[in-house]
Amino acid sequence: MVAPLKVGIAGLGTVGAEVVRLIESQGRALSARCGRGVRVVAVSARSKAKKRGVDLRGIEWAKNPLALANDPKIDCFVELMGGSGEPALSAIEAALRNGKSVVTANKALIARHGSRLAALAEKHGGALNYEAAVGAAIPVIKTLREGLAGTGINRVYGILNGTCNYILTRMEREGLSFAECLKDAQRLGYAEANPSFDVDGHDTAQKLAILASLAFGTKVNQSAVYVEGISSIAPEDLRAAEELGYRVKLLGVAVRTESGIEQRVHPTMVPKSSSIAQVMDVTNAVTIDGEGIPPITLVGPGAGGAATASAVLADIADVARGIRAAPFGRPIEKLKTTTKAPMKRHEGGYYIRLMARDLAGTAATIATRLAEQKISIESIVQRHPDGAVEPVNTRGKPSPVPVILITYATTEDAVRQALHAVQQDRVITGRPQVIRIEKN
Amino acid sequence: MVAPLKVGIAGLGTVGAEVVRLIESQGRALSARCGRGVRVVAVSARSKAKKRGVDLRGIEWAKNPLALANDPKIDCFVELMGGSGEPALSAIEAALRNGKSVVTANKALIARHGSRLAALAEKHGGALNYEAAVGAAIPVIKTLREGLAGTGINRVYGILNGTCNYILTRMEREGLSFAECLKDAQRLGYAEANPSFDVDGHDTAQKLAILASLAFGTKVNQSAVYVEGISSIAPEDLRAAEELGYRVKLLGVAVRTESGIEQRVHPTMVPKSSSIAQVMDVTNAVTIDGEGIPPITLVGPGAGGAATASAVLADIADVARGIRAAPFGRPIEKLKTTTKAPMKRHEGGYYIRLMARDLAGTAATIATRLAEQKISIESIVQRHPDGAVEPVNTRGKPSPVPVILITYATTEDAVRQALHAVQQDRVITGRPQVIRIEKN
Repeated sequence: MVAPLKVGIAGLGTVGAEVVRLIESQGRALSARCGRGVRVVAVSARSKAKKRGVDLRGIEWAKNPLALANDPKIDCFVELMGGSGEPALSAIEAALRNGKSVVTANKALIARHGSRLAALAEKHGGALNYEAAVGAAIPVIKTLREGLAGTGINRVYGILNGTCNYILTRMEREGLSFAECLKDAQRLGYAEANPSFDVDGHDTAQKLAILASLAFGTKVNQSAVYVEGISSIAPEDLRAAEELGYRVKLLGVAVRTESGIEQRVHPTMVPKSSSIAQVMDVTNAVTIDGEGIPPITLVGPGAGGAATASAVLADIADVARGIRAAPFGRPIEKLKTTTKAPMKRHEGGYYIRLMARDLAGTAATIATRLAEQKISIESIVQRHPDGAVEPVNTRGKPSPVPVILITYATTEDAVRQALHAVQQDRVITGRPQVIRIEKN
Repeated sequence: MVAPLKVGIAGLGTVGAEVVRLIESQGRALSARCGRGVRVVAVSARSKAKKRGVDLRGIEWAKNPLALANDPKIDCFVELMGGSGEPALSAIEAALRNGKSVVTANKALIARHGSRLAALAEKHGGALNYEAAVGAAIPVIKTLREGLAGTGINRVYGILNGTCNYILTRMEREGLSFAECLKDAQRLGYAEANPSFDVDGHDTAQKLAILASLAFGTKVNQSAVYVEGISSIAPEDLRAAEELGYRVKLLGVAVRTESGIEQRVHPTMVPKSSSIAQVMDVTNAVTIDGEGIPPITLVGPGAGGAATASAVLADIADVARGIRAAPFGRPIEKLKTTTKAPMKRHEGGYYIRLMARDLAGTAATIATRLAEQKISIESIVQRHPDGAVEPVNTRGKPSPVPVILITYATTEDAVRQALHAVQQDRVITGRPQVIRIEKN
């Protein structure tokens, strides 16, 4: 039997401790699967004293992550500290330069430095595995990297942030506002005290950049992702979506277009019948559209200590078995560079909600402005609250009335121009709400 | 660069021809992903003259599959003939004995001879890859074999037969009978002229046996699977399921129980909110319950030339890249033997539909008989057709009235005994309908 794989773990938070526990408890099954043992020989973490509920006796403590990465005793460096910069970056670089394999759950780091780290891994012969960085236990990295090797991919999209999906699910089910649901999510520990990274779409963007690289053979480029968050979504949008046969999800979408790879994160209307529309609460999902085959959707827990540790362990097992896939599915020299596809050129259907000052004139004006931009309307709904025919506010003037439009495929530029003109016409109040539609 | 992988393909039906076409059209992308070229050097098929729409010039024709498997020119033998016996079996054995890697889409063969072939592959160092055998392009084999290496699995279940799911979907949506939908499925080419293999659950059983082996580290044993088909399902069962918050799916379920690994295929009530319940038409899906983590569900096309070819190509790419996972995830000597878990001991909730001769007496009798077996009733619905209070048939006697029961978890044995007693009591007409409930 081959000598056991000697693992060093940097970072002993929830995930790190769970990985130690699993290697201990699943030791026999794991060695049967890998054809060799897997042993944690050294760790590093900020506090040696902290209670972690796992047995660390017999495991060496490294002075710091870098010392661990340079320790000749370890074959595989597992980085579970997080953060797109130091000390994770230098430690991973050192491990790779030493020819060690690296396993990490760090999406921020892979999104920012992935290509450079992949080049190091390739040069020195180690693996660079990061299944846990996107969708935790959902095997989406492996599927894109190895599983669809012979299938051209046209589009990959998904619900990649549990916090946003939880908030949208609550808003839809209970008719609550974004702010109320965010507060609940924070109370339950699903959202951070500073929720911007999640709800403004940046977490989704990092994960999408990684998926796009694997799907399209491009260098990871987070700055090429167009990003919009969910804070503008109102309960009335979710009600309208429901009536029109859609649900609203924060999607990350990467798609091959004539003007290059479009990468975008934004609230999206998806048909209620699609697999992705069924994904509720904190669950994540990724759909892959391969050339000539129906979509494949992977659904599961996108976060959590146990789910993340499960993916980390699968990555460690691949290292133990000697499986070495190119970190981004192709040799680094084959990866193409992407630029940010201009959203102005994005083509698709749109949901538009406007508050009309008075109905008769407004509908005609909107129709005219859309027609000027050659936008065809699939449906238009003008709704008086509570069925009143001409609602009147307390000052005797008509109250604004919502007008909801669904357009056929058009360009983002056309929509923006038409709505700008409608605003200039002063027939609506407030800003128009615009949500892109993604067909399956 | 390493020399190209030389592939021989036995069987040039829809899938085989598509594999040849993909290797041709995706050649450059494939070689970038594999770090080496992939080339079809020889084929074998019954008719050399048949039009296949692919360019076979420059490819050698072997005399027969066995000759192809013995051809020293090829590194990887791709078996796409099908059938659980000859000539596929001998050809695969010969290829493995020659130290070649084998890729096959043949579920029947893997379900029947999988362990023996895996032992040959292990002994001679070749790969034995069969991603296409279950769920076509859905990467379920790879996920179970490599992706969840460190996670203990408690249960794996899925919709593994598109024909059955198509029939059940149509029955549910349109209120049609099984026979009508089967006829349509045959007309559309979704069902064979002899549909028994699909609708009686045998196709699902073969696939389930393979998944169970990977999930639980056991030898594939198709004869350990309890099998029931969908032909007894009536539109009224689907209506009742709908009202009770369930859908009926033909599931293959493999689950770790105290009495061993239970493997069973039968119509199953699944909660409407579960991922698996959303899977409609010919789509397939597999859910994996890992220890301590929420379920992972993989959804996609379970059949079709392009989807199957996609999986075959992914397997070929793994061979080209030198990835060698143990065929069933563990060395053959570690695989345990399973026996058929007795269904009498199966525990779960049950849906029971009876036709009561007259209501007042029947409900009391049924309740008594269930109580005798210590079965608790979650709900009981007695329904008069069209809301009539006491329907009367043309001969002036009361018509039988459906009584629908949902039980809490109990054993199969208790249910069978209680229903036997109810039948003896002569308070119902016909045979009781029983559908097992699978909770998520």
